[in-house]
Amino acid sequence: MTKKNAFYAQSGGVTAVINSSACGVIETARKHADQIGTVYAGRNGIIGALTEELIDTSLESDQAIAALRSTPSGAFGSCRFKLKSLEENRREYERLIEVFKAHNIGYFFYNGGGDSADTCYKVSQLSEKMGFPVQAIHVPKTVDNDLPITDNCPGFGSVAKYIAVSTLEASYDVRSMAATSTKIFVIEVMGRHAGWIAAAGALVEDYGIPVVTLFPEVEFNQEKFLAAVDAKVKEHGYCSIVVSEGCHWPDGKFLAEQGTRDSFGHAQLGGAAPVVANIIKDALGYKYHWAVADYLQRAARHLASASDVEQAYALGAAAVEKALEGKNSIMPTVVRDSSSPYQWHIGEAPLSEVANVEKMMPMDFISDDGYGITDKCKEYLYPLIKGEAYPEYDDNGMPRYVTLKSGIVEKKLPPFEL
Amino acid sequence: MTKKNAFYAQSGGVTAVINSSACGVIETARKHADQIGTVYAGRNGIIGALTEELIDTSLESDQAIAALRSTPSGAFGSCRFKLKSLEENRREYERLIEVFKAHNIGYFFYNGGGDSADTCYKVSQLSEKMGFPVQAIHVPKTVDNDLPITDNCPGFGSVAKYIAVSTLEASYDVRSMAATSTKIFVIEVMGRHAGWIAAAGALVEDYGIPVVTLFPEVEFNQEKFLAAVDAKVKEHGYCSIVVSEGCHWPDGKFLAEQGTRDSFGHAQLGGAAPVVANIIKDALGYKYHWAVADYLQRAARHLASASDVEQAYALGAAAVEKALEGKNSIMPTVVRDSSSPYQWHIGEAPLSEVANVEKMMPMDFISDDGYGITDKCKEYLYPLIKGEAYPEYDDNGMPRYVTLKSGIVEKKLPPFEL
Repeated sequence: MTKKNAFYAQSGGVTAVINSSACGVIETARKHADQIGTVYAGRNGIIGALTEELIDTSLESDQAIAALRSTPSGAFGSCRFKLKSLEENRREYERLIEVFKAHNIGYFFYNGGGDSADTCYKVSQLSEKMGFPVQAIHVPKTVDNDLPITDNCPGFGSVAKYIAVSTLEASYDVRSMAATSTKIFVIEVMGRHAGWIAAAGALVEDYGIPVVTLFPEVEFNQEKFLAAVDAKVKEHGYCSIVVSEGCHWPDGKFLAEQGTRDSFGHAQLGGAAPVVANIIKDALGYKYHWAVADYLQRAARHLASASDVEQAYALGAAAVEKALEGKNSIMPTVVRDSSSPYQWHIGEAPLSEVANVEKMMPMDFISDDGYGITDKCKEYLYPLIKGEAYPEYDDNGMPRYVTLKSGIVEKKLPPFEL
Repeated sequence: MTKKNAFYAQSGGVTAVINSSACGVIETARKHADQIGTVYAGRNGIIGALTEELIDTSLESDQAIAALRSTPSGAFGSCRFKLKSLEENRREYERLIEVFKAHNIGYFFYNGGGDSADTCYKVSQLSEKMGFPVQAIHVPKTVDNDLPITDNCPGFGSVAKYIAVSTLEASYDVRSMAATSTKIFVIEVMGRHAGWIAAAGALVEDYGIPVVTLFPEVEFNQEKFLAAVDAKVKEHGYCSIVVSEGCHWPDGKFLAEQGTRDSFGHAQLGGAAPVVANIIKDALGYKYHWAVADYLQRAARHLASASDVEQAYALGAAAVEKALEGKNSIMPTVVRDSSSPYQWHIGEAPLSEVANVEKMMPMDFISDDGYGITDKCKEYLYPLIKGEAYPEYDDNGMPRYVTLKSGIVEKKLPPFEL
C-alpha cells in the first residue's frame, strides 16, 4: 500500500485559533512522515479542492508551521461556500474525489462548523461508493460554540475571553466617568442564534460590574429592559450592557435591523448596540458610549485563551492520529472531566451525529430575569477562558504573525467551473 | 515648617495607564514620608476637591497601590468638569484653595489634558495671591496626544498599540474571507480633532496589509476615497479602512453625523464606520464588516504598551520629585533622545506654555495621497507601542484589576454648591 497524502481545509468564519488546529494537523502529519505523505491545504477552503488549487505545505519551514499556533485568521484562506446536497449537486462531490484521486489524497481533514461537518460526512460516504475511499475527519471550529457532543468548540474560548476582559475594562472606564458624563456602556457581540458569546460578557458581574445582557434566546422587552437598566444606574451610578447581534423583538425582527436609514435613504447602517443605546437615551436620558467588536473579537489572538489554543491544537493533532488508527467519518471532541480543577481529554463523535445538529445554550444557563447568567453557566465558561497564550512581539511592538508562502501544486485535471 | 499633604486628581477621559501615573505619585510620596504627609485623591476628579470629598490614600495597602500600575480607568473617578475662567468664576478657585488650606495641602498634582493644565496653572497663581501657596504640578494624560512640548502623552501609546494590533488581526481575518465573502473591513477609532490614533492603524501597511486611513486633517473626498479602496481590492483582494471619528466632509460635517435616522426618526445612531462601509457597498458592491472600538481602545490595559505604562509611572513619580525640589507650575514631560534605539528622559515645561496650546499632528506625518502615514510618522510611533506590560490574571482567566477602598476624609468645611 503506497503512502497517501492528506488534504486540509479551513471553512467558514475564521477564528483566533483555527491556525492552531492547522498547526496540530501539519506537525502531527510531519511526525508520521512514514505513513502520511504531503499535507495539501485548500486555497480558500474547499474551493481550493474543487478548483485544484492545493497549497503544498511541505514548502513551509517547521518554524513557519509552528508560528501558525499563534497566528489568528485562516492562513490558507477560508470560504463561505456550502456544497449543495448530494442529490442537488453530485458533480461537486465527485469532483472532490477526482481531485483527491489525482493527488493520491487518502485523508481529508476539514476544519469548520456544522456545514463542513456535513460535507465531511458526505465525502466519506461517497468516496467509498466511488471506489476511492478517503478517511474524512472533521476538526471542530466555531466561535458560535454550536457543535454538538464536544464540550466546546475551538475559537469560542478566545472570543469569550476577549469579550469578558473587554467588557470588564470598558466597565471600569464608564464607572470612572459616570459622576459627570457617560453612565451607559453598550457592547455588541457576535452570536446570531445563540447567546454563548454574550454570556461571556455577563461574567463581569462576578467582578462587581452592574451588567444587563441581551441574549438571542430572550425576546427583547423594551419596558422590562429599561427598568432593569435604570435600577442598576440608580444603585451603582452606571450600567454596562452586553447585546448579542441576534437580540430580537417578539416578532423576530433583529434590533439591528429596525429600519435604520441614513439621509440618502440607505438601509441598515447600524448594529444592535447603537439601537439599544438610543432606546436608553430616549427613555432615561443617560449619556452613553457604545462599541461594536465585530471581527476584533474573533481575530484577537493577542488575548487568546490558553485552554482554547491548546484544545485547538490537540484536536488537529488528534484528527491525524485517529486517521492513522484507521478512523473515518468522525470528529474528535473535547470531553470535560471536571470543571475545577479543569480537566479534559479528547474523545470522538461519529459525523452522522454531528452533521446538521445545532447545540443551543441550555436555558438553565440564563438567569430567571433573562438578563444574566447562572452559576452553572459560569462553571461552564471560566475553564474555557483560563490562561493566557500570548504571541511573540517584534521590536516595533507588533505581534509576529506568520504569512505563509502558499506555493500551489501543479494541476493535473481540467478546470472546474464553480 | 510643618509637613504638607498632597492632593491628586484625575481629569477628563480616562486611559489604560492613568492609574500608572497615580501609582507613581503615591508610591513616590510614600518614599518621602518625611517630607509629604498624606496623599488625598479627589473623588471624581476636581469635583472631589470642590465638594471636599477627599479619598484618603493612606488607607490603601502598598499592594493595592502597586496594583494601580496595571489597572485601567481612573481608580478615584474622573470628571468632565472644566473650571470657568478666573474672571467668570473666581468662587471655584477660591474654594479649591480653602479646601487645600483646611487639609494642609501644599502640593496639587493634576493628571489630565489641556484643560486641566490650565486649571493647574491658575491654582498655582491664585494660591500665591491668596497667601496659601500651593505647588501645582500637572501630570500629562490624554489618548488624544495633543499636549505641547512633551514628546507624547501617556495613554496614547497604549491606544495606538491596541489599534495597530487590532487592525492587523482583523485584516488577517478579512484576508482569509475575501475570496467568497467579506472584502472590506472598517474600524472606527477615536480622535475628533487629530489623527494620531488613526495613524497607529495605518502602521499595518508595514505588515503587508492594504489599508486606507481617513484622518480628521484631510477632508473626505468620496470619489477619490472610493478609487483608493477599489485599487487596493483589485490588487490584493481586500482592503482595511481605518476611520477617525473626526473624519469630515469638506463642509465640516462629520461623517458620523450625516443625518442618520432610525424608523422612529431618532437622529444619529451611527458612527463613521457604518457610514464609510455603506458608501463602499453602494458604490463598489463589496461585502463589508465594521467595528467601532470606542471605550475598548482606551481601556485596553490587557494590551498596554510597555513604553506607555513606564512613562505614565515615571511622569507621576517625577511630579512628586519636582515638587520636593521646590518646582511649581510645571508639567514633567517626556523628552525623546533617540528613536532607534528608543531612549528618553524626563524633562519639564512651564504650565504657562502648556495651558491652552493644542499640538496637532504634523502634516508631514500624512502621506501625499492623504490616506497613509510617512516614514517620519512611523519612526515617531513605533517606540510608543514598544513592549508589552501584561496585567496578572486570576484563576478564572480574568485580569486582576484593583478596586480601591476609597475611604473619604472627614469634612471640615461647609458644603459647596457646584
